Amino acid sequence: MTITHDRLDATFAALADPTRRAIVARLARGDATVNELAEPFAMTLPGISKHLKVLERCGLISRTRQAQFRPCHLEAGGLDSAVSWIEENRRIWSERFDKLDEHLRDIQTATASTKGRARR
Amino acid sequence: MTITHDRLDATFAALADPTRRAIVARLARGDATVNELAEPFAMTLPGISKHLKVLERCGLISRTRQAQFRPCHLEAGGLDSAVSWIEENRRIWSERFDKLDEHLRDIQTATASTKGRARR
Repeated sequence: MTITHDRLDATFAALADPTRRAIVARLARGDATVNELAEPFAMTLPGISKHLKVLERCGLISRTRQAQFRPCHLEAGGLDSAVSWIEENRRIWSERFDKLDEHLRDIQTATASTKGRARR
Repeated sequence: MTITHDRLDATFAALADPTRRAIVARLARGDATVNELAEPFAMTLPGISKHLKVLERCGLISRTRQAQFRPCHLEAGGLDSAVSWIEENRRIWSERFDKLDEHLRDIQTATASTKGRARR
């Protein structure tokens, strides 16, 4: 993986805040300006801007430089590294249990065949 | 979804630290004691214990109460809410682009048929 620890730190930290998650969820539905994003929250524009800067720094959103409008755009690819990290560790974890299941089945088969021979 | 904001906040915040991610990755491979977990890190046992408490509070790990051994166990289900949240928003985002693609194809088909009629 080429993703640095810093990038994963920043992405997970960005997602650890409910307002930032709500902004990501809003932008998943379509681009929006800072004013549009601020509307549903009881927050000042500078407050929302601070959250946008956090999301922008970790590459989760981008902003065009169109004068005062500057619509925010979700860079959904920014979520890839976070999902990859989680999925990779869930895969390793579940493979461990698959192996344990396999091992238990082998033991059961061996026990059954030993019992079979003993009965004959 | 029944997962509270607080739980998602705590899970993402827990994953925002490289040492805690390394602990989760280690436990995905198998249960381990605090001493075993501390070994690869240049950290004191109380330092590792602090990280374990963070992981335990958000339900990512559990610890049995076996005297001094107390092996730590990854509760991989604790990662589900985080993955669900990300996947849901990636799905909404990609459906938006699917709809855009569909709309563009409709426009192209309409334009082609108009041109076809004009030529006849």
